[in-house]
Amino acid sequence: MPVVVQKYGGTSVADPTRINAVADLVEASRRSGNDVVVVVSAMGQTTDELIALAADISPKPPPREMDMLLSAGERISMALLAMALDVRNIPAVSYTGSQAGILTDSSHGEAKIKEITGHRVKQSLADGKVVIVAGFQGVDPDSKEVTTLGRGGSDATAVALAAALGADACEIYTDVDGVFTADPRIVPGARKLDEVSFDEMLELSGAGAGVLMSRSVEFGRRFNIPIHVRSSLSGQVGTWVKETTMEQAIISGIAHDRSEAKVSVIRLPDRPGVAATVFGPLADAGVNVDMIVQNIAHDGTTDISFTVPRSQVEEAERIAKDVAVEVGALSVDVDLEIGKVSLVGAGMRSHPGVAAHAFRALAEAGINIEMISTSTIRISCVVRADQVEKAVQALHAAFDPPQITEEVGA
Amino acid sequence: MPVVVQKYGGTSVADPTRINAVADLVEASRRSGNDVVVVVSAMGQTTDELIALAADISPKPPPREMDMLLSAGERISMALLAMALDVRNIPAVSYTGSQAGILTDSSHGEAKIKEITGHRVKQSLADGKVVIVAGFQGVDPDSKEVTTLGRGGSDATAVALAAALGADACEIYTDVDGVFTADPRIVPGARKLDEVSFDEMLELSGAGAGVLMSRSVEFGRRFNIPIHVRSSLSGQVGTWVKETTMEQAIISGIAHDRSEAKVSVIRLPDRPGVAATVFGPLADAGVNVDMIVQNIAHDGTTDISFTVPRSQVEEAERIAKDVAVEVGALSVDVDLEIGKVSLVGAGMRSHPGVAAHAFRALAEAGINIEMISTSTIRISCVVRADQVEKAVQALHAAFDPPQITEEVGA
Repeated sequence: MPVVVQKYGGTSVADPTRINAVADLVEASRRSGNDVVVVVSAMGQTTDELIALAADISPKPPPREMDMLLSAGERISMALLAMALDVRNIPAVSYTGSQAGILTDSSHGEAKIKEITGHRVKQSLADGKVVIVAGFQGVDPDSKEVTTLGRGGSDATAVALAAALGADACEIYTDVDGVFTADPRIVPGARKLDEVSFDEMLELSGAGAGVLMSRSVEFGRRFNIPIHVRSSLSGQVGTWVKETTMEQAIISGIAHDRSEAKVSVIRLPDRPGVAATVFGPLADAGVNVDMIVQNIAHDGTTDISFTVPRSQVEEAERIAKDVAVEVGALSVDVDLEIGKVSLVGAGMRSHPGVAAHAFRALAEAGINIEMISTSTIRISCVVRADQVEKAVQALHAAFDPPQITEEVGA
Repeated sequence: MPVVVQKYGGTSVADPTRINAVADLVEASRRSGNDVVVVVSAMGQTTDELIALAADISPKPPPREMDMLLSAGERISMALLAMALDVRNIPAVSYTGSQAGILTDSSHGEAKIKEITGHRVKQSLADGKVVIVAGFQGVDPDSKEVTTLGRGGSDATAVALAAALGADACEIYTDVDGVFTADPRIVPGARKLDEVSFDEMLELSGAGAGVLMSRSVEFGRRFNIPIHVRSSLSGQVGTWVKETTMEQAIISGIAHDRSEAKVSVIRLPDRPGVAATVFGPLADAGVNVDMIVQNIAHDGTTDISFTVPRSQVEEAERIAKDVAVEVGALSVDVDLEIGKVSLVGAGMRSHPGVAAHAFRALAEAGINIEMISTSTIRISCVVRADQVEKAVQALHAAFDPPQITEEVGA
């Protein structure tokens, strides 16, 4: 029988009513002839509540105990789902990450999956059971310690498990209908994509499309597991993220991100290795630098700007100021009021005019571009935070569906 | 270093403030030179909330999944306590029942501890850490399934762990100051006992004294682990439950219990084996029969009365009625409005006048005794539920402290 891995996020299992709805979806998939493995997140706000409890007790909880704490969350949701399936006379069994053989490295709070043994999962599937696996958690086989996988961990569990089980597909159930050409709250005319390639999805996720984390897309690409992003509410067909697409859109979608801040180091001496003096200490401190732009030098000095998550901006500023003193730069500026708008599309590779078309559209909307960064299939622009919505709308209009799609090979 | 096992119940770890208070008590014990192992229950009402969630989903949740669900509770409290100790610069590590090597049989929801390996606990103690262990849970080593121990499970974990570690004592922290001569809410003059023997405590627990479950007292007696019942609020010395007591009180305490109901089978044929026809089916159905009284026969028939937990009275009545039809008894009566009052004291063994003194005290208070049952160190009387308080007060006054204590050998 085909094996399908389904993943349900926190809002999909937020209360007994929603858990029963999930059980119905599982039952439907089983009825249609699938062996089903379900990966669940913790119920609703459980993880946030546990984090708040820990914060009440310690400003810096030991990561090992934090993982022990947080791993309680999925235990609750998975046991409740097993009960809901039992009520429907569907044999089911729930396994923790450790029981399911989700083996990770030892990095508490942000562990990486190294291997999935899945012995008990496979045995239970062979016994005709629905298998429910706790997302977001695993075990370090050397220390026997429980680990958690960090952001996007449950999606990663699901896709990696699908790979380990040789599943036909991995379905990521969420509270939206799929991947859209832009955020429908900002662009009312945004369309749901039927398909998007792994590469494009990676760029969209990296550029702020929150529907799927890069990490699970990477697993999907590496093991060629088609990922179906769909709604647990509507049950409609969503977006397939997969290896090849039927048609190659120039622009698949427009993503935006208002969670970053910009740090600029002004008038750095323009000499070899100066970038390393800035980004070495930032990397050592675990600061997650996203875009980096270095302007051309003038008067023997250059300016370097970079973006970081707002949660890390104070640390980034402190480090940048130390470096500025050390190397004799003029100053460090921090700007919290920025936003990033990104255009993603595999067809861009063969269409050099896309960037120019995008910049013109932003200019016509009166939007100033402060930073630009590109990959072969993405163009990202930093603009004022309060102009992000207008920028997304302008770009979506400029690459309106009829103009942005072409047949493969055309 | 002496090893002390401390157990904190749900109210003692109900919120971050209380958890910090527990961390202070642990720190104090460590400062005074002990190696400390802490057993914790789930926070406050967590277990009840999880049970309610399960009930929302299934009228009869699979016991295996129920244990998976409930075992999340202690995981949260133990991790938070480890964080609170870390804030105090006390190295600490928390272990689940499985990690601590609490090996049980396979009876989900009411598993019995078979063995405690405790390898990781011992290693962490040797490493100078405070070890926190989840109460109430274990693992069936054959199936690798998580189990829970049922009522009184955390106390049992603590005492069994104390035995396995060769601990000098097991401290059970609770929200009262110790074991009292009677419930202080009913008898304002009730005194805290400094010591009580294992045998007496077993009778008191069995007779309704909720402060300590029989199960943990049995472990303490079997392995001769002194148990110190004390308050996590006051920090005062509480009551020691131990092998021998300095002085042998005639009466150690008066316990009461309003959680039972009485079932009477009227005019059973008085022939050999008739009691077995009644209690065999009850035992098979798992009904927990407490007191049994059979009156003398008259006219070739006899009456048998017994008490059961009110939660099981409907099942007991159904079974008793089937038996009544089968053997030709007249009828089955059920009485929900009863209460049980028990007098416990090791000195009773050598004082045959105690029962008469007790019955006289109840008579003088105008209380009718409906059933009597005795052991060598306990006298229990069933009375009307609304007369329980008056009965406890009358007995406490009748065995007032100055009269009930004598030196050993006197």
